[in-house]
Amino acid sequence: MRQAGGELTIDTRGQGLVEITRRVLDWVDAQGLESGLLTIFCRHTSASLLIQENAAREVRSDLEAWIARVAPEGPHYAHDDEGPDDMPAHLRSVLTGVQLSIPIAGGRPVLGTWQGIYLFEHRRAAHLRRIALHVIGE
Amino acid sequence: MRQAGGELTIDTRGQGLVEITRRVLDWVDAQGLESGLLTIFCRHTSASLLIQENAAREVRSDLEAWIARVAPEGPHYAHDDEGPDDMPAHLRSVLTGVQLSIPIAGGRPVLGTWQGIYLFEHRRAAHLRRIALHVIGE
Amino acid sequence: MRQAGGELTIDTRGQGLVEITRRVLDWVDAQGLESGLLTIFCRHTSASLLIQENAAREVRSDLEAWIARVAPEGPHYAHDDEGPDDMPAHLRSVLTGVQLSIPIAGGRPVLGTWQGIYLFEHRRAAHLRRIALHVIGE
Repeated sequence: MRQAGGELTIDTRGQGLVEITRRVLDWVDAQGLESGLLTIFCRHTSASLLIQENAAREVRSDLEAWIARVAPEGPHYAHDDEGPDDMPAHLRSVLTGVQLSIPIAGGRPVLGTWQGIYLFEHRRAAHLRRIALHVIGE
Repeated sequence: MRQAGGELTIDTRGQGLVEITRRVLDWVDAQGLESGLLTIFCRHTSASLLIQENAAREVRSDLEAWIARVAPEGPHYAHDDEGPDDMPAHLRSVLTGVQLSIPIAGGRPVLGTWQGIYLFEHRRAAHLRRIALHVIGE
Repeated sequence: MRQAGGELTIDTRGQGLVEITRRVLDWVDAQGLESGLLTIFCRHTSASLLIQENAAREVRSDLEAWIARVAPEGPHYAHDDEGPDDMPAHLRSVLTGVQLSIPIAGGRPVLGTWQGIYLFEHRRAAHLRRIALHVIGE
């Protein structure tokens, strides 16, 4: 049994989903495990990680519009140190979560056919986001 | 230290919660680990996994009604290739998540007394859902 | 490679966020791993775990107010065996989740600068909550 850790740095361009499937799979591939467990962890409180359909672009725009309704900007937050998108970004991060674990089999994470891995940027400004990676297996 | 991987296939009958606790525990039991970590992963973008109370049936119907309010069907989605339940299914999958990890101690996952593991089917039609399993420990 | 399991018992004082970062980090530190994977699991269906910003107190009060809007108390639940806060507590637990996994590197979990680990108590009454811990690595 062995393990490996690493980090991806993702450039975001303001609010929206950034697909990171390819970069994650390439990193896992480089570790050379046949089977095991992959964990991905977003080291921020205003961005998050999720798995969602990777085919239709409309799924992503609908998802972005929906989360803006469930955790909207507005004048009712006590915390707005960094602007009106500050507190909604924290709420959207809680809603979607910052961590994913995916079993590895046959040399790759067992994502379904339509599943892609996304970083969800919740701030209006571009950010550099750091994603920690870990695999364990053999 | 050793690990094992597997898969469960779950027949759903349209929208709603399907308890899979027994099938997951039986699979873990068959791996014969005394302690370790269990990970369960749903390989779909319109079904999800969650842990919720396993006693009162009303908890499940209230949960199903609530998620239909938070991520409702409606005419405002750009993505409706597969019908009005298509996009809401993706949103509900994001809301609840597709992955669970549970420590194993004393030979079984440390679920609390009232915790059950559920697959949440978000499409109206019956589906065959594939759930990947992984344990590591000794 | 080695692993360890444990449990934290957390006294809550009714609805709200309880920071447990220090207690989790102390437990991990005592296991003496240089690198690996930490998993934290809440053994309840009316409390949950999340990672959120640990600096401004207003973030936590805004988060508590928001979740009370998304999963409100009300007369429309079939399940209210234990009072009006019973069913909303289950919904809020589903919304935020009961499990976190965090890679360990350089001897500690790779939390970002502003990330704290919180137990979210969703019942009005004080409760004793049990959090299972697991690490694997070397």
